Amino acid sequence: MNRADAFGRNYLQGRISGEFALAAHIGVVVESADDSGLKLRAPLLPNANDKGTAFGGSLFAVAVLAGWAWLARYLAQHAIAADAVIQESNIRYLAPVSGAFRATLLAPKPAEIERFRKMLRRASRARIHLRVDIHEGSTLATRFEGWYVAAAKDA
Amino acid sequence: MNRADAFGRNYLQGRISGEFALAAHIGVVVESADDSGLKLRAPLLPNANDKGTAFGGSLFAVAVLAGWAWLARYLAQHAIAADAVIQESNIRYLAPVSGAFRATLLAPKPAEIERFRKMLRRASRARIHLRVDIHEGSTLATRFEGWYVAAAKDA
Repeated sequence: MNRADAFGRNYLQGRISGEFALAAHIGVVVESADDSGLKLRAPLLPNANDKGTAFGGSLFAVAVLAGWAWLARYLAQHAIAADAVIQESNIRYLAPVSGAFRATLLAPKPAEIERFRKMLRRASRARIHLRVDIHEGSTLATRFEGWYVAAAKDA
Repeated sequence: MNRADAFGRNYLQGRISGEFALAAHIGVVVESADDSGLKLRAPLLPNANDKGTAFGGSLFAVAVLAGWAWLARYLAQHAIAADAVIQESNIRYLAPVSGAFRATLLAPKPAEIERFRKMLRRASRARIHLRVDIHEGSTLATRFEGWYVAAAKDA
């Protein structure tokens, strides 16, 4: 197993399931995770409202976990002892979701990651902007953007 | 029981518990609801992460439910056959939550409600802006604002 695989799907599934009590009730599954980004998915049923569509709070929860997972993975992969937390986010609901859904995060551009890493080294605290789209099949249902903060544990 | 009480705490608890599968897992309790606004609360444990603080997705879920509950109550109270859905929202996390938390929504100003109601009559669809604050004790932990849409069921 190479270094990238060590922080892949199974690693992130363990982190999410182990660190967030609500994750099991939402049914979040890590579908893929590598340096290019990651995908989470969740079933409709535990997240449905009585109209048979997904609760906006569940869509948000899966999106915010996708962003957290990217940052937690980045920190772990680079052996940076820092906690990742969400600071602010915006979500737009574009279409109702009436089946299983998938959250996709594409890794930020290398220059953004580098800026984040330099700031974290210098200030022990840095902010990064992450975007997550949720699709049901090929339909874009939700656009999420979050500003996450990493804070060094010894800061 | 007067008309206001008919759409009070018990009414909204029934709506939330009955219409959102995830609500029971979050442990949302309607604490109060009247024409001036409403309060929901939730315990930490089912919403905690492994650091003993509340998951940002849970805080969002309780806030978005508070806004939904206000609008669902308003529509029911005025016998308007319309569904309430969240369209966009923004949330800022200001302080970590390490205990039970409470979401508070103050009713919008009468002029805003009137503008919303006129638009809903005219266009069978209208948008309203709602704000929800989450506190742990007296500490303001989260500020949420949401733009909700009501759409007439026969539209």
